[in-house]
Amino acid sequence: MNRQQLIEQIKKKQSFLCVGLDPEVSKLPDCFMEQPVSEAIFNFNKAIIDATAPYAVAYKPNLAFYERYGIEGLRQLDQTVEYLKVKYPEIFVIADAKRGDIGNTARMYAGAVFDREYAFDAVTVAPYMGEDSVKPFLEYDGHWAIVLALTSNKGSQDFQMIVDQEGHRLFEQVLRKVSSWGTEENLMFVVGATQGSLLEDVRRYAPNHFLLVPGVGAQGGSLQEVAKYGMTKDCGLLVNSSRGILYASKGVDFAQASAEAARALQQQMAELLP
Amino acid sequence: MNRQQLIEQIKKKQSFLCVGLDPEVSKLPDCFMEQPVSEAIFNFNKAIIDATAPYAVAYKPNLAFYERYGIEGLRQLDQTVEYLKVKYPEIFVIADAKRGDIGNTARMYAGAVFDREYAFDAVTVAPYMGEDSVKPFLEYDGHWAIVLALTSNKGSQDFQMIVDQEGHRLFEQVLRKVSSWGTEENLMFVVGATQGSLLEDVRRYAPNHFLLVPGVGAQGGSLQEVAKYGMTKDCGLLVNSSRGILYASKGVDFAQASAEAARALQQQMAELLP
Repeated sequence: MNRQQLIEQIKKKQSFLCVGLDPEVSKLPDCFMEQPVSEAIFNFNKAIIDATAPYAVAYKPNLAFYERYGIEGLRQLDQTVEYLKVKYPEIFVIADAKRGDIGNTARMYAGAVFDREYAFDAVTVAPYMGEDSVKPFLEYDGHWAIVLALTSNKGSQDFQMIVDQEGHRLFEQVLRKVSSWGTEENLMFVVGATQGSLLEDVRRYAPNHFLLVPGVGAQGGSLQEVAKYGMTKDCGLLVNSSRGILYASKGVDFAQASAEAARALQQQMAELLP
Repeated sequence: MNRQQLIEQIKKKQSFLCVGLDPEVSKLPDCFMEQPVSEAIFNFNKAIIDATAPYAVAYKPNLAFYERYGIEGLRQLDQTVEYLKVKYPEIFVIADAKRGDIGNTARMYAGAVFDREYAFDAVTVAPYMGEDSVKPFLEYDGHWAIVLALTSNKGSQDFQMIVDQEGHRLFEQVLRKVSSWGTEENLMFVVGATQGSLLEDVRRYAPNHFLLVPGVGAQGGSLQEVAKYGMTKDCGLLVNSSRGILYASKGVDFAQASAEAARALQQQMAELLP
């Protein structure tokens, strides 16, 4: 999916919501507990997708939550991507994989997510190994690399905030260098929402790039700040919520509760959009 | 496998060779070209393992080369690990996955490689997201996280060599901080062999940790330098060769050629061991 198509979806749905599909079997609603793991994950995803699709422009399965359940989990990831691509072709699908390896290996990882029958639109990529680890993901027309810049976890303080001899923090160096490897048509950045005011600094290096912003939803409250400091005239944001939507209820009303959680975010977003 | 068992294997085989199992279907020996991809990868791995096991103490499948072939590839990865664990239980098996994500996701990744019927002994981990992205991999007794410090690719210059305000390069900060999160019994580091003399700097921060050293083999020649600057009294090194061993010949003699390539490295290693 290209940038213009994504922007049109955002305008049409009045939403920049990304739903993180991170199914943890032990947390699934009670009605899935009787199903075998080899079916429960996809069935749960399907119900969540159908309930939340009116309010979301993107879905983001995190691959760890499928790899954890072995071949059975990965088969259900494939089913999930196929389901999204067939039933909701207008939706942007992100493989949250945080891959990063030397050039010839990165090419294999890029092929794994982009060169397949039902391809992901984008994949998250780790920057530590540098240019040849990122570039292979930028060579697929209409597909995107979303590179980690500033993450939302506590550990983001360990290395990302290290200041170099010219006074730049590591995440700023990542934004600066990685920006020069791609364009606003094939490159986005991950920027954690728990650090709302830092978005202003991020926008100095990536004024128009789309940003994938995790950390909103369960925490709540910072959506306004994210929009204030991060939004561009084209929106330029995909804000992710995972647990706050997926596990809104464990009861038979789980899908409705997820829909309501997604709708509440969408309505806040509609007010914030230009 | 614990540190003592690994050291004993190195002494017994007079080798610190790790064989990278990175099967690229287009590069396989001619005799595998007639086989379906769903069988060729495992059959190739099996032949390579049987030919090289007398000379190697570790095998390292890079997960990209299995993910690239979808469920069929990943099923053959599982077959490969099972084959190694059943037939060669003394061998150290590394998932080269370079995973790195926030705490609760890292726990899923750790479970995917360690909490399974035929578990990997170790997994490579990317440091960019900091402490909570690394620690879940350190919580499995007898299993290891191998954290990227200094890689062997050109892109390693982009961020790993950035100098902070106290004069430390990023890879040194990674070594210093990550060392404090684990022990010499559950933590190793990736250090690229193409930067042999930098091993001296690495040993200042990680004097006794095992180092996984890629980039030797096809390139050749630097093994002496790696041993000179990186070896400890317990060896403290696993030196990886992938393409130089896997693709030593495309003919019917491929397994013998791989065995000879592995044996040549093992013999050099025997001379370098204390």
